[in-house]
Amino acid sequence: MRTFNNKTFTCVGINNTISIIRSKRFQIEKVLIIKGSKASKNKRLNNALNSINRGLIQKVSDKKLSSNFKTQGVSITFYGDLIYDEISKFDKNDHICLLVLDRVEDPQNFGQIIRTAECGGIDGIIYSRHHSVPLNETVLQVSQGAFVNMKFYEVTNIRNELIKLKNNNFWVIGLENSADARPWYSIDYSGNTAIVFGSEGSGIRKKVLETCDFIATIPMQGTTNSLNVSAATSAVVFEKLRQKLEKR
Amino acid sequence: MRTFNNKTFTCVGINNTISIIRSKRFQIEKVLIIKGSKASKNKRLNNALNSINRGLIQKVSDKKLSSNFKTQGVSITFYGDLIYDEISKFDKNDHICLLVLDRVEDPQNFGQIIRTAECGGIDGIIYSRHHSVPLNETVLQVSQGAFVNMKFYEVTNIRNELIKLKNNNFWVIGLENSADARPWYSIDYSGNTAIVFGSEGSGIRKKVLETCDFIATIPMQGTTNSLNVSAATSAVVFEKLRQKLEKR
Repeated sequence: MRTFNNKTFTCVGINNTISIIRSKRFQIEKVLIIKGSKASKNKRLNNALNSINRGLIQKVSDKKLSSNFKTQGVSITFYGDLIYDEISKFDKNDHICLLVLDRVEDPQNFGQIIRTAECGGIDGIIYSRHHSVPLNETVLQVSQGAFVNMKFYEVTNIRNELIKLKNNNFWVIGLENSADARPWYSIDYSGNTAIVFGSEGSGIRKKVLETCDFIATIPMQGTTNSLNVSAATSAVVFEKLRQKLEKR
Repeated sequence: MRTFNNKTFTCVGINNTISIIRSKRFQIEKVLIIKGSKASKNKRLNNALNSINRGLIQKVSDKKLSSNFKTQGVSITFYGDLIYDEISKFDKNDHICLLVLDRVEDPQNFGQIIRTAECGGIDGIIYSRHHSVPLNETVLQVSQGAFVNMKFYEVTNIRNELIKLKNNNFWVIGLENSADARPWYSIDYSGNTAIVFGSEGSGIRKKVLETCDFIATIPMQGTTNSLNVSAATSAVVFEKLRQKLEKR
């Protein structure tokens, strides 16, 4: 695992702070709470704060914490391992589902995808080290604390990782806007699957697409023809969940 | 229809500009293009610009247009009708699907929902006049031009509108995070349906929920338990589309 070179991150908001504390995955450097704020009166937050060293908590009287996001009166600064260097070996019957992001560039999209993936029961997210937004503070913030329950794999060569996964009992599915592709719901997501999503502007790279066992598509019903990548992820993740729940 | 009181709006980006011109729904006040920018070299955009009065197009030499969004070197200022005052009467077999937003507050979410709705074949969006984000520039911008193909109904009382829809051959479905509710895929979306989504913080109001014929839920698979409302919309809109396409 990589430790972000001991770089610290700061997230704001009640949900984020609770998730980060409860996960016990991170070293907490400090928690700032504004006196009299929504956060200071929140029961769930106060319960979570009871589990950490009181010396790490600072009550401040400033009216605002510095952030581009709604703070609700609380911020948490932390560091720790987040990114795995190697994708574990999986058994044929593990029913693992990984999302693979080929050059997603927008931190809002990456953060939303993490949140959707966690809610939908996805086991991990692989993303490219180059030409992609890294796991930065905005991404973590937008995920609303979901990142603490997700495994991240940052890889230099997506194509090579997909080939390794295929040799490790995975089916690889690429989601592309293509008339020739199969509709997204006709794919069987029950085995070990890796589902590839491309960049906002230009989709999945050709070399990556060539590695896919299936190409799936969501046929557009309007005239704009451009579904946001995080919305597409949601459609596919919950189709996978539907298939799983209906089979039971 | 309401005309926004002749208020003008400005959107940026190639896709937005093309959509707004092509729709022919709006009066265009001006288009600014930065010389040598990505926009100035874009074929599709230049084709679209050929269809409007050249006097409305100003080539500027500034390096940046003022916007919080990526401009790609183009902005368009326009005005016109966007919001319908009355929901039309529909026939039993019209297979109309409307989304109903009960106090969605975040402009990013509203904009993404418009984009997803347009891609998924939704016929219109009803939203509450009070305690909701209005159709503002950020919302239109985030929708990436999808708003030009969507019907909007701004209503003062969501509950009353739902009762009217029920009397007009609609089934009303509310999406709530509730253990008692039916899974979202077990609902039949083939008739005239209105699907209600609640606010980011507190979901659908009780009085509105009581009007729903069915309560649907997406069972959360993780520990954060909080799916973004636009991601939830995507899951439901594309489940509806799946049912439609699989029936064929």
